[in-house]
Amino acid sequence: MGAVVDMDSARGKGPQPTLEGLQRLTASDINAVNTLILRHMQSEVALIPELAGHIIAAGGKRLRPMLLLACARMCGYRGERHVALAAAVEFIHTATLLHDDVVDESDLRRGRATANAVWGNKPSVLVGDFLFSRAFQLMVGDGSLDVLAILSEASAVIAEGEVLQLITANDTDTSETQYLEVIKSKTAKLFAAATRLGAVVSGRPRVEEEALETFGANLGIAFQLVDDVLDYASREATMGKSVGDDFRDGKITLPVVLAFRRGATEEQDFWRRTLERLEQEPEDLDKAIGLLTRHGALNDALERARHFSALARDALDIFPNCPRSRLCSTPSPSISSAATDRPQKARFSALWGPL
Amino acid sequence: MGAVVDMDSARGKGPQPTLEGLQRLTASDINAVNTLILRHMQSEVALIPELAGHIIAAGGKRLRPMLLLACARMCGYRGERHVALAAAVEFIHTATLLHDDVVDESDLRRGRATANAVWGNKPSVLVGDFLFSRAFQLMVGDGSLDVLAILSEASAVIAEGEVLQLITANDTDTSETQYLEVIKSKTAKLFAAATRLGAVVSGRPRVEEEALETFGANLGIAFQLVDDVLDYASREATMGKSVGDDFRDGKITLPVVLAFRRGATEEQDFWRRTLERLEQEPEDLDKAIGLLTRHGALNDALERARHFSALARDALDIFPNCPRSRLCSTPSPSISSAATDRPQKARFSALWGPL
Repeated sequence: MGAVVDMDSARGKGPQPTLEGLQRLTASDINAVNTLILRHMQSEVALIPELAGHIIAAGGKRLRPMLLLACARMCGYRGERHVALAAAVEFIHTATLLHDDVVDESDLRRGRATANAVWGNKPSVLVGDFLFSRAFQLMVGDGSLDVLAILSEASAVIAEGEVLQLITANDTDTSETQYLEVIKSKTAKLFAAATRLGAVVSGRPRVEEEALETFGANLGIAFQLVDDVLDYASREATMGKSVGDDFRDGKITLPVVLAFRRGATEEQDFWRRTLERLEQEPEDLDKAIGLLTRHGALNDALERARHFSALARDALDIFPNCPRSRLCSTPSPSISSAATDRPQKARFSALWGPL
Repeated sequence: MGAVVDMDSARGKGPQPTLEGLQRLTASDINAVNTLILRHMQSEVALIPELAGHIIAAGGKRLRPMLLLACARMCGYRGERHVALAAAVEFIHTATLLHDDVVDESDLRRGRATANAVWGNKPSVLVGDFLFSRAFQLMVGDGSLDVLAILSEASAVIAEGEVLQLITANDTDTSETQYLEVIKSKTAKLFAAATRLGAVVSGRPRVEEEALETFGANLGIAFQLVDDVLDYASREATMGKSVGDDFRDGKITLPVVLAFRRGATEEQDFWRRTLERLEQEPEDLDKAIGLLTRHGALNDALERARHFSALARDALDIFPNCPRSRLCSTPSPSISSAATDRPQKARFSALWGPL
């Protein structure tokens, strides 16, 4: 099941999309992050590590921590602070996932195998709160008010994005601008905070903090766009993501926004019935994928993703080319010596080229 | 409806329980707190201030902020930091309330008029997350890592207490020790953090921080015990609390713990049917109140509350009697001058005598 979107030929003959490079670059640090995550999700209340372990093991990719760790490395960081902050970012992400899965009973009946389908809404909410608190305890242990300011603001913006998404859910009149507003807040903001923190722990100048924030924000938007396309187009065996969750939930993602606006009246009626009133027949998902394909909505959404991916790559341009005398005017002593052998942007961005 | 528990005669002819004294003492500060709360719950996403305003207006007593403000005053504090921290504490409390109200659809049918009954589970959860993030932004604005450590740890403990309460819910085998464990975490911890912060912002020595923490912790336990008794014994006109919510939810509070253990087999069967299996008939609440009264469970729970209330009062003893040379060894310059006219413990604890 799923639309045939030839992501390879659209992308040209470049490298395949893979996290392997990033995983190799951050492997030893990620082990330290995982150890810290395991230690800090412990509680005498046994249900907490049980439920948290379920979602933390299932969530698994550690994309945001890896980005923070890789950005810290690119900035020449040699200390240990990035490990705790990467764990904090993953805890915030996990708490968000748990709270995003809260549903009413009617939704549960649509058969989703989330933590709250197993344990119920309330334990998921409360364990999310616990992990969120643990994230802040990790930051307090780190001791930087700058870090706390970045992640507490990011948390507030994520919550705003999630509420905004609720409001646009099931509303086929949602515009591309509104859709972008939602994913900038709910997804891209934490990417941006994670990448920015790579510069912050390294004591890099503000201009590099902002470049890495721009990198993360645009990468996050591209990531969410691809994720939304995959919900209609995934080849399940390779991508490990099932098709149709967003459709069944009535989520209005960019492919739907584009197809709805390009569709004839009876097509718009179809989207309203299935996504607004959630009156869905078994064959409706295939019909939806057909409409998305006919209007080029999936390929165009991927094209948008490439646009933001290009913005992300270009934001890294200041790193190899910057005159060190200007950009590195206030490095801490321990950083300036380490920074001489930091990885070049070219090597780093190659990891993300495929996106 | 509700048991007749003569709280007045059990208490003797002392002053009536009232928050008026505390309200008078903190009136101008509370106005500043309310202004700050209103400002910081704003968001471009209109549903957020709408829903947050509903619960913040309804929650209304501002007990925890008032305690923080009063403790700061007792410590002779003359600055402005206590206002933002009181708002942060209220935001954490409000977020907890919103998340505590998350239920499954079956519970909603039992007719509770909570925020999530009006807006649904998910908006309540997400607005709670927003307020929780705002609390941390207020603390970051304050700039003290000590404050952040106290409130992030408190938040984690509250979440643990809430999960523990879920586990003991509907379990009539719950012991008094387990019950105490729950209310120490879910209720008393935030009281303790609020009162401790009164000493922290004032730059008082550690021994005074700990005394105020002990005061708040015991007061919080007493508060929750009385709250649990009122759920079976409130005179609705004066206390503004309706009777029977805990019973309908199958919550195992101390009155039930005591009555269950003192009851005959058929009484235990009654508690199991009504609170474990939630098979309740209209007349069951009256029968429950009858059993609680017959076994003296409500009066004995109040007696326990008096015990913790006494511990709370006694924790304040160091304030008037402390040799200033020993206890005030490291005051900051701005504090030591202000501390000379701080209110005596006798005046302050009189506010809480009735409890």
